[in-house]
Amino acid sequence: MTDRFLLACRRQPVDRTPVWFMRQAGRYMADYRALRERHSLLELCRTPELATRITLQPVDAIDVDAAIIFSDLLLPFEPMGLAFDFVKGEGPRVEQPLRTEADIERLRLFEPREGLGYVLEAIAMTRRELDGRVPLIGFAGAPFTLASYAIEGGPSRDFAKTKALMYGHPEAWHRLCTRLAQVVSAFVVAQVEAGAQAIQIFDSWVGALSAEDYREFARPHTAAVFEALKPTGVPTIHFGTGTSAILPELAAAGGDVIGVDWRLPIDVAWDQLGSERAVQGNLDPTLLLGPRHRLLRAAEDVLQRAAGRPGHIFNLGHGILPASPLEHVQVLARFVHGYRPA
Amino acid sequence: MTDRFLLACRRQPVDRTPVWFMRQAGRYMADYRALRERHSLLELCRTPELATRITLQPVDAIDVDAAIIFSDLLLPFEPMGLAFDFVKGEGPRVEQPLRTEADIERLRLFEPREGLGYVLEAIAMTRRELDGRVPLIGFAGAPFTLASYAIEGGPSRDFAKTKALMYGHPEAWHRLCTRLAQVVSAFVVAQVEAGAQAIQIFDSWVGALSAEDYREFARPHTAAVFEALKPTGVPTIHFGTGTSAILPELAAAGGDVIGVDWRLPIDVAWDQLGSERAVQGNLDPTLLLGPRHRLLRAAEDVLQRAAGRPGHIFNLGHGILPASPLEHVQVLARFVHGYRPA
Repeated sequence: MTDRFLLACRRQPVDRTPVWFMRQAGRYMADYRALRERHSLLELCRTPELATRITLQPVDAIDVDAAIIFSDLLLPFEPMGLAFDFVKGEGPRVEQPLRTEADIERLRLFEPREGLGYVLEAIAMTRRELDGRVPLIGFAGAPFTLASYAIEGGPSRDFAKTKALMYGHPEAWHRLCTRLAQVVSAFVVAQVEAGAQAIQIFDSWVGALSAEDYREFARPHTAAVFEALKPTGVPTIHFGTGTSAILPELAAAGGDVIGVDWRLPIDVAWDQLGSERAVQGNLDPTLLLGPRHRLLRAAEDVLQRAAGRPGHIFNLGHGILPASPLEHVQVLARFVHGYRPA
Repeated sequence: MTDRFLLACRRQPVDRTPVWFMRQAGRYMADYRALRERHSLLELCRTPELATRITLQPVDAIDVDAAIIFSDLLLPFEPMGLAFDFVKGEGPRVEQPLRTEADIERLRLFEPREGLGYVLEAIAMTRRELDGRVPLIGFAGAPFTLASYAIEGGPSRDFAKTKALMYGHPEAWHRLCTRLAQVVSAFVVAQVEAGAQAIQIFDSWVGALSAEDYREFARPHTAAVFEALKPTGVPTIHFGTGTSAILPELAAAGGDVIGVDWRLPIDVAWDQLGSERAVQGNLDPTLLLGPRHRLLRAAEDVLQRAAGRPGHIFNLGHGILPASPLEHVQVLARFVHGYRPA
């Protein structure tokens, strides 16, 4: 068993920099694509045997130091009463996006074991299958990012409807996010109880906010989730993209580890976060689409910038893109493990 | 005639802070929507009488200190040999996105008077119609942003194909951007000759790059455009979104005025840019969708942060969204003009 991932989360000494990749189980892998030909994304998420199998694929194929449960940020929507599906080429689509305050009031709280028992089963099953090889990460979306999907109905460029609700009906916004924070908190605590050894909170789209808006509209709700996780004792990771202007605010909401994207050099980001945080990142995932020499040169730059700082977990700045060659992902993981500071 | 916009571009004293809005002629205006019912977006762009009429709509309806010619970033594509159209709800779509180096080699240079004469006519016509009321801004896309549309075929979230070309075929990338810079340079110089009194270069999506990638892949080509504009003597504006991590690099490429979005407070951004630049921005456009008290409080915050710094041009951090009430835009412009530092 390699425990360097968990050690690095706590900024303890490690033999080499741990590495895993966001969306390491996904469409860039032939094994995954083969399963997707026979099952919808939601079927894969809802069938613990299949979710387990997918979670293990990259652990077998790539020299990673952690597994992350195969699941989706939007799964809590259905037991809340918000039906959604995945539309080819477009991503998730919520059937009836939230439009009125009544829509928000109708959102249900639920017992994770009842509403999302299949995720918890997959976690327990994956832990057994992993048999201690690498630790297992559970995850969920942060309230802001989940709220944006619930309001926009899918991915958004400008978050116009989300912000119109925030600015125009702040009480309704806070009620929505309070409810989302309750749901997410219960869900991630249940994931830990089921066997998750670390939790990553994805606030993927929070970079759309200024620091002031982050403080007012997002931070209290994300902080509630991290607060709920504290008694579990597992390390927590707080990830967002486009967060160059709000890193100290993001960190103030919580997270033993802060996940950063490629827009700021990792040492510059780390200086803003302070040395009491571990940092995860931050290679541009599109580098996996280019030539190997440029990929490894950029990876070396990340490692050099992080060298001498306890608590670096190597990762991408966002998920692996479907067109990435598996071989590049494998080479990258090996390169990270082979790296020694000059 | 109010010349406070042009004075502010040069950081000269003004009686009040000048204000204009990106996409101030657009779908949020009933007059514009009425024209769009009868004409496609491309027809409007290609008919100087209609483009002139649309350019003037906000000058008549809103207390703005500049007009910006009604046009579109992608218009140079067609005379280069890249057909495109606008797809309802999705934005621009290039019919055959660039896929191979041969596709890049086929891109044509052209005389702006021949390929885009209708834009130059619209500029000349608008100048006559404006009759000195407010100055007229011309514009074009920066090579990176144009290249991303040409390669992705439309808007993109991750710029995977764009970056794959950048990283994997840097010579082809630089040939493409060199050609785009030649086209854009000739086009904006011709716009000045036709009557444009300032030029804004939109590098809308350049915030997807790290500072290092910006330096290598975008900056030289944007710098070439600003270099070409120097002999014209008109003030230049350099705009991008999501640029919090690359502001000094962006400024190094050129621009008397740097346009910034809302992610960084304007004084923080300005400190990074240095006092020798004028700064344009930076209200979050979604604030126009919320209540008036919050809109004006946020506008006051921008004005207070910029107070005492010569060269502030009030604007949004990105274009006006279609759902914005015209009345809010009007109120905002009046508020900016009425503002006096405490």
